[in-house]
Amino acid sequence: MTSVMQALVLDDELRLEQIADPVPGPGEALVAVRMAGICNTDLEIVRGYMGFSGVLGHEMVGVVEACPGDASWVGRRVVAEINLACGRCEDCLRDLGRHCPKRSVLGILSRDGCMAERVALPVGNLHAVPDGVPDETAVFLEPLAAAFEILEQVTVPPDARVLVLGDGKLGLLVTMVLRHTGSDLTLVGRHGSKLGIAEDLGVQTALPHELTDERYDIVVEATGSPDGLAEALRRVRPRGTVVLKSTFHGAPEVDTARIVIDEIHLVGSRCGPFPPALRALAHGRIDPRPLLEATYPLADALTAFEHASRPGALKIALGGGKP
Amino acid sequence: MTSVMQALVLDDELRLEQIADPVPGPGEALVAVRMAGICNTDLEIVRGYMGFSGVLGHEMVGVVEACPGDASWVGRRVVAEINLACGRCEDCLRDLGRHCPKRSVLGILSRDGCMAERVALPVGNLHAVPDGVPDETAVFLEPLAAAFEILEQVTVPPDARVLVLGDGKLGLLVTMVLRHTGSDLTLVGRHGSKLGIAEDLGVQTALPHELTDERYDIVVEATGSPDGLAEALRRVRPRGTVVLKSTFHGAPEVDTARIVIDEIHLVGSRCGPFPPALRALAHGRIDPRPLLEATYPLADALTAFEHASRPGALKIALGGGKP
Repeated sequence: MTSVMQALVLDDELRLEQIADPVPGPGEALVAVRMAGICNTDLEIVRGYMGFSGVLGHEMVGVVEACPGDASWVGRRVVAEINLACGRCEDCLRDLGRHCPKRSVLGILSRDGCMAERVALPVGNLHAVPDGVPDETAVFLEPLAAAFEILEQVTVPPDARVLVLGDGKLGLLVTMVLRHTGSDLTLVGRHGSKLGIAEDLGVQTALPHELTDERYDIVVEATGSPDGLAEALRRVRPRGTVVLKSTFHGAPEVDTARIVIDEIHLVGSRCGPFPPALRALAHGRIDPRPLLEATYPLADALTAFEHASRPGALKIALGGGKP
Repeated sequence: MTSVMQALVLDDELRLEQIADPVPGPGEALVAVRMAGICNTDLEIVRGYMGFSGVLGHEMVGVVEACPGDASWVGRRVVAEINLACGRCEDCLRDLGRHCPKRSVLGILSRDGCMAERVALPVGNLHAVPDGVPDETAVFLEPLAAAFEILEQVTVPPDARVLVLGDGKLGLLVTMVLRHTGSDLTLVGRHGSKLGIAEDLGVQTALPHELTDERYDIVVEATGSPDGLAEALRRVRPRGTVVLKSTFHGAPEVDTARIVIDEIHLVGSRCGPFPPALRALAHGRIDPRPLLEATYPLADALTAFEHASRPGALKIALGGGKP
């Protein structure tokens, strides 16, 4: 007897469907989803980015329901890395599984995602969530790991002048991560209420027109906009570093002569390491809950997506206790 | 009595003129130019890049004729760094004089260059040329230093797979520098005769259609073309490094999503350190003379520029013994 479940499926359009429960393959676990976050990437995917069809969603916290290969996982609360690597190619053998050319990506590329009652996931992708970390915090794990990725790639000295461009969800998570470096950190964005979240943490903030012509050692571009890179190149000092986080459709015009003449380091940055993000949540060094704007039951997912699409919306999640 | 000299002046057009001898300012020397190289940047400047007017030229070897502040320089053969920094700003104090925002640049920005009988230069910009290094070699010092800049910016491990894009003068100098890293180096270009210069040094070469879909750890973009960056992004592996050398008018469209998804490091690279380049020439580890295609007397500078503008031309120099 096949069980069915509710799932948010993207095909020609986004709709709730009853579909068959996923069946865990070898080395996989079946996870009951407790909360799933809506990411700007999801909104881009609905607009056609990545050409994805299937169950949407890549940010989640859940509980393992079944794990044929390792029963010790059953009942554990987990978060999951979203890149499903082959484990055998040159990149995987170099510990670059997140860049495996044969990878699928949860709810993004050739793999059903987590905006459903249940999702099948390789055990190797799971991380147990410590008891003290509530679902409302754990659901931020994937984007928080993406923020930590910056520290995997770039040295941020404590005397560096750092500018984060963009006060959206990712810009705020990046700010939460970078403020622990002790660097001279400024978040710039257009929304006083969001900047307030950073100010509550003691971080300097600025509206765009408040910036002087000061140049920064490191600029993190998290605007989500095609104009973000040009602004970052205007704000970084010669020999400085620009960390590029935004993905979107299209190829913006880039003043490459500026990159050459000022010898800028431009670093693309995507998914990040889960363990440091989990430690930061477990130790209370980062609390992303001020970013959680609303939660909706899975049955109201279309309303939730509408909410998430509003300009300036912070994190909208599916599931959780609050309707 | 003011002496006059012949100089190649760019104004509305490029022409030879008799102008007054330069007068060395405080801390400057008067240098009699023995050879001056024509760089692709000169060709771009003649087309309007940088909006420069004045005496052209930034690659040279000469002999100090006068040095009011330090007579010990008189009679010495020298090469000269091209960035004239203020020495007092924040960048200068951080040893980033090549990025001083108040800098002038020899024959490029607000400062008369070296395509003349004589040029005035700050003593701090001069480097004495060892006796064993002939003029035909020393005249390559500035672009060779720009090739060495890559090793100032990027670690090139001996097991790295490195691709140099572009078999022009800079691509060949970069190849001459990088082959000493012991890395697995390939030069790709469109000209069999130029690739032959690298092959004579034992470097692997390829025509563009001969490249497989292998991805490289490090790709140096030295094509001089707006398409070069896109090609470099196609050839670099995830988490790999692209060194960007080309400057030109305009802002090409760049697939920034590729930079983010593959987490590419993109490094702009411009002028470099003279001492390692001088050592390489003095020790014979690098001999750029196969790149010297022709020399012309200063009086034939316009013909020399015509020659340098021919597609595929290698280094054309003014001065020297050979007419």
